[in-house]
Amino acid sequence: MPGDMKACWEEKRTLVNEYLDKWIPSEETPPSQLHKAMRYRLFAGGKRIRSILALVAAEVVGGRELQALPVACGMEMIHTYSLIHDDLPAMDNDDFRRGKPTCHRVFGEALAILAGDALLTMAFQIMGDLALYPPDVEPNRVLEAVKEVAVAAGSLGMVGGQVMDLEMEGRDQQEGAEEALEWIHVHKTARLIEVSLEAGGIVAGGEKGDLALLKGYGRRVGLAFQIVDDILGSQGDRERMGKPVGRDMERGKLTYPAVYGVEASLARAKELVEEALDILRSFGEQAWFLRGLAQYVVERDR
Amino acid sequence: MPGDMKACWEEKRTLVNEYLDKWIPSEETPPSQLHKAMRYRLFAGGKRIRSILALVAAEVVGGRELQALPVACGMEMIHTYSLIHDDLPAMDNDDFRRGKPTCHRVFGEALAILAGDALLTMAFQIMGDLALYPPDVEPNRVLEAVKEVAVAAGSLGMVGGQVMDLEMEGRDQQEGAEEALEWIHVHKTARLIEVSLEAGGIVAGGEKGDLALLKGYGRRVGLAFQIVDDILGSQGDRERMGKPVGRDMERGKLTYPAVYGVEASLARAKELVEEALDILRSFGEQAWFLRGLAQYVVERDR
Repeated sequence: MPGDMKACWEEKRTLVNEYLDKWIPSEETPPSQLHKAMRYRLFAGGKRIRSILALVAAEVVGGRELQALPVACGMEMIHTYSLIHDDLPAMDNDDFRRGKPTCHRVFGEALAILAGDALLTMAFQIMGDLALYPPDVEPNRVLEAVKEVAVAAGSLGMVGGQVMDLEMEGRDQQEGAEEALEWIHVHKTARLIEVSLEAGGIVAGGEKGDLALLKGYGRRVGLAFQIVDDILGSQGDRERMGKPVGRDMERGKLTYPAVYGVEASLARAKELVEEALDILRSFGEQAWFLRGLAQYVVERDR
Repeated sequence: MPGDMKACWEEKRTLVNEYLDKWIPSEETPPSQLHKAMRYRLFAGGKRIRSILALVAAEVVGGRELQALPVACGMEMIHTYSLIHDDLPAMDNDDFRRGKPTCHRVFGEALAILAGDALLTMAFQIMGDLALYPPDVEPNRVLEAVKEVAVAAGSLGMVGGQVMDLEMEGRDQQEGAEEALEWIHVHKTARLIEVSLEAGGIVAGGEKGDLALLKGYGRRVGLAFQIVDDILGSQGDRERMGKPVGRDMERGKLTYPAVYGVEASLARAKELVEEALDILRSFGEQAWFLRGLAQYVVERDR
């Protein structure tokens, strides 16, 4: 990653972490085990891609990153809740993530379920709290963002994607695999990345045209991100991925490399990134970070 | 229940059911197993107390029930998600509720967790969708309601109560039991009933003073409701409760009858209802339904 991009990323990540820490009850607040479990996964060192995209989107449409801060933090909470629930024994049954034991391994299954529930709920509390936004953010736009995020995260979005992912597991991967694969990845991963950009742009006063461009970019980068994740999951070493490699294959998960092979999958990811870059063209120089991020998605090694 | 109250209840319940059916994706919408699971528990014949309280609160503060309809439906979705997650093997491990097999018994654990997640998410989608409210409802007030509901349902409210409930399970019930019991019941049950009234009142344009009265009433009726639930759970027959009787005792749950005995528990519930009725005094005739409901809470037999 180029130096100026890295610096910008770090600056925004620090800001998000600071406010997450400020807005989420401390570990001492009762019930303290619950707040410990919520914070355990939330502060496990994520890249904060979704929240950073929300902040960047605010700037790209001509607003300020502070306008999108509650949305950015909310997106990170929703992403974290989904990881906690996905890792549960009844779902993917993973013991490790990002090199750390998963939430239910440390706090037990009941608390992991409830920590996820509480993070999801708190995301809407923070995103819906007008007092946390600068005064120039319109209530109408905050509501619009809340609604769009809920749609993207719910049964027709992320949760729906996870259901389909589990349903396809271990099935004969030939019949209808390509269609199912795209559906799952769009819903499970791309929709949340897309809506991070959209919601960040909405609260910052973005115009309809710009919001549509951000969505188009987010959909493609989100899908490319998941394809690369699949490839890394099938190839990378344990240390890099923080979880056992080849686990998806073991479970008979529908992944891009399993269906298309590694080379064709990488080609598809690169194609999506090219489309995403095309979409950004009309934003000009102000979209430099989004351009760099799209490149990073296919070049990253973890 | 007196005839006019029953009629009013039925009318409001029909309205809520109609809109829940309208606003939640059909069983045919993919992923259809997910939407089936969401609808299975949601339409399992609940009393709809929380949603009805939201509608009534709107009228009591001088507004119309249609103003509170999205909030009412949202409260029912949140209540239902909490039942689905509470019943899970990792939590209360219940096989039956309201005489029907629990969600995870029918659809499996993974889908039950995800159906709960999706219902919680959809609650905020519906409550946050300005287009579902009559045009005279202010966006500011919708946001205020969303935020209050999230606080009441989250780690400092309902989810926190469930965590404490599980933590106290099977412990020595003498030490600190009374304090813990009240904390659990207020958080796990009363907060959601309280906020149903509050949020219904908020979106209907209620004044601060009236909202505070509604909250005071809701807290007391909510607590009385849970105490009576505890008593019925320890006494009622299986058919009435729809789940095995004495199950709480078996699991060493902290309940009012276990700590205070049945008689003292019932006396406490009646005392709370008296306080709730006192609080309603300034509303006059328009609060007739809330008065009747408070009475019903201690007189019901299931």
